[in-house]
Amino acid sequence: MKTFEIIKKDKFSKARIGILKTKSGNILTPLFLPVGTLGVVKTLSYKELEEIGVEAFISNTYHLYFRPGEEVLKKFGGLHKFINWQKVIFTDSGGFQVYSLRELKKISQDGVEFKSHIDGSLHFFTPERVIELQKIINSDVAVCLDECVEYPSEYEYAKKSTEITTLWAKRCKEKFLEINYANSDNFQLLFGIIQGSVYKDLRKKSAQEIVNIDFDGYALGGVSVGEPKNLLQEIVSYTVEFIPEDKPRYVMGIGEIEDIWFCIENGYDIMDCVLPTRNGRNGQALTSYGKINIKNSKFSVDESPLDLECDCYVCKNYSRALIHHYFKSGELLGLRLLSYHNVYFMMNLFKKIRKAIENNSFLDEKKKFLEKFNSSE
Amino acid sequence: MKTFEIIKKDKFSKARIGILKTKSGNILTPLFLPVGTLGVVKTLSYKELEEIGVEAFISNTYHLYFRPGEEVLKKFGGLHKFINWQKVIFTDSGGFQVYSLRELKKISQDGVEFKSHIDGSLHFFTPERVIELQKIINSDVAVCLDECVEYPSEYEYAKKSTEITTLWAKRCKEKFLEINYANSDNFQLLFGIIQGSVYKDLRKKSAQEIVNIDFDGYALGGVSVGEPKNLLQEIVSYTVEFIPEDKPRYVMGIGEIEDIWFCIENGYDIMDCVLPTRNGRNGQALTSYGKINIKNSKFSVDESPLDLECDCYVCKNYSRALIHHYFKSGELLGLRLLSYHNVYFMMNLFKKIRKAIENNSFLDEKKKFLEKFNSSE
Repeated sequence: MKTFEIIKKDKFSKARIGILKTKSGNILTPLFLPVGTLGVVKTLSYKELEEIGVEAFISNTYHLYFRPGEEVLKKFGGLHKFINWQKVIFTDSGGFQVYSLRELKKISQDGVEFKSHIDGSLHFFTPERVIELQKIINSDVAVCLDECVEYPSEYEYAKKSTEITTLWAKRCKEKFLEINYANSDNFQLLFGIIQGSVYKDLRKKSAQEIVNIDFDGYALGGVSVGEPKNLLQEIVSYTVEFIPEDKPRYVMGIGEIEDIWFCIENGYDIMDCVLPTRNGRNGQALTSYGKINIKNSKFSVDESPLDLECDCYVCKNYSRALIHHYFKSGELLGLRLLSYHNVYFMMNLFKKIRKAIENNSFLDEKKKFLEKFNSSE
Repeated sequence: MKTFEIIKKDKFSKARIGILKTKSGNILTPLFLPVGTLGVVKTLSYKELEEIGVEAFISNTYHLYFRPGEEVLKKFGGLHKFINWQKVIFTDSGGFQVYSLRELKKISQDGVEFKSHIDGSLHFFTPERVIELQKIINSDVAVCLDECVEYPSEYEYAKKSTEITTLWAKRCKEKFLEINYANSDNFQLLFGIIQGSVYKDLRKKSAQEIVNIDFDGYALGGVSVGEPKNLLQEIVSYTVEFIPEDKPRYVMGIGEIEDIWFCIENGYDIMDCVLPTRNGRNGQALTSYGKINIKNSKFSVDESPLDLECDCYVCKNYSRALIHHYFKSGELLGLRLLSYHNVYFMMNLFKKIRKAIENNSFLDEKKKFLEKFNSSE
């Protein structure tokens, strides 16, 4: 079964529109995934995600393993049923979380030993275990266990790490085939993850090896981990050449508006990021004319909505002054309203991008959008 | 204009159904007011309050005076417009907040001097000022400035304080008549507050004096401030005799389920309390079979809704296990879901109570409801 189909290519860039076919439904790419680490996009209900038009979000194997834990997930028959969400769920393998534990981990060819961030207890993830856990979660799109190396990393370390990521990917694929039956109604997709830090030869090698194993899609990991923008762009645009054109391409952790346009222009289809919700909880709202921080006192009497050009529930019903009041008063509703608006902003952005590709006007729209976004009000 | 009309009296108790007529609409009593101190019922949006069936909530003059402050409220033309809520708003005068400041206040016949709980700056509220502020807020139902004395209080202190409350009530009424025009479209209602601690003679005196001034309704203040239940019940049932039957009677700060039935049985019409939302944020859910704390580990795999007999959005869509997971994981959505359910539970309870009065079955329904509520699952 073909699980990805490109239905339109932009004439003047590598941007394309595709359909990703999953057991929970077909979704259009370019696709933005809000992050729902623990099975919830922070502060938002499923009804709200649906209102906003969210078709998919990404949850986290490492975090779900601790809470609610695999027994609960087994009992409910997976995350969809546990959280009462019928649409698409991606899961990250936990590689990034294990990476961010720093002192709490020990990596070997076998897998990764780590201490729980909750109680310090000792746990061991093998590639096979991570595939099993994602099957218990029953996500629509699973990814292989990888090591996400930090920036900067020595060449030798990155090289060794990339080799481990390839080895793990092979074992993930084997385990995946063992527990996922082709043509089953309950098929998962499995994406391989390409690593290699900022070293082009490692990126190329990693991409070729991962592609060789053959996955339903390919994710670029280990980018947007603190490297300068020019290096990020170099790696993103360089590596795409080694990922088959007919497979979905996913850059992990990308959420800055400029980076999104850049990645899509370079032929990537899927992105995820915590920024719309995390920044929202810190008072930052995305608007057509750039970012604003609603805690700024100049908004205390501002009767206008967050973004005059936005037609989301928040912009139709709440003034900047009122949301400012909520933030100043510590009212939790404020966190929700900004998260709602920011996720809506992203969904709307991706809709615009798909439309621009449809009309072969991607580059024009990119220029117009960013000029406005980078101007200040 | 008659602003309160009794449309049904229960045959076997003092419970009654009334209609309170305000500039933002007519509402049925018995009426429960969720608390929206800063203009928001904590964690809930106005859309959700409407879904839940909330017709009115009570906000707080003292808190709104600091945030968003009178300039913002003036600019927007009152709290309704600021928060985009068309239904009824009660305001408390701030007497209770000034009471809870303890060391930060100085009371004289003139008014109360207090230090801001935010920055320690010095402020002075007179009865007139509190009426002016409530006019700026433009609430539908305002109350007089009072001194809410703590429990226990010496008789002599309570006596002197009650005298001040009467004096302030007179000044409030005068100021109110000066700035509110009869037959105006924008008429407010003004309720007097009866004090007197747990001393019957003071309660009687206070009630008679306040009633003598003539208000649109009468509130019982200074109850549910830590006194034992039997004293609370004694004061509530004793004082009602001195409040005219044809006026709305409001007991402030009542939210425990048994107390609600008791007050309504004794002829009170309006109650308010933070419990449904505050306890909700602490993990406590109200159910037909009593209170549960969702953080309890026994709920981690419980597939049932919070309350099997509830048809609110939360109970139709979320399992106890899922809400337990949110609380254990610190997800803010959990706080909202319990607040939503608990406020719905209260609205539903008052609906049931009105229906019972309608059917002259108030006492039967009270018995049945409380037997079930006090049984454990």
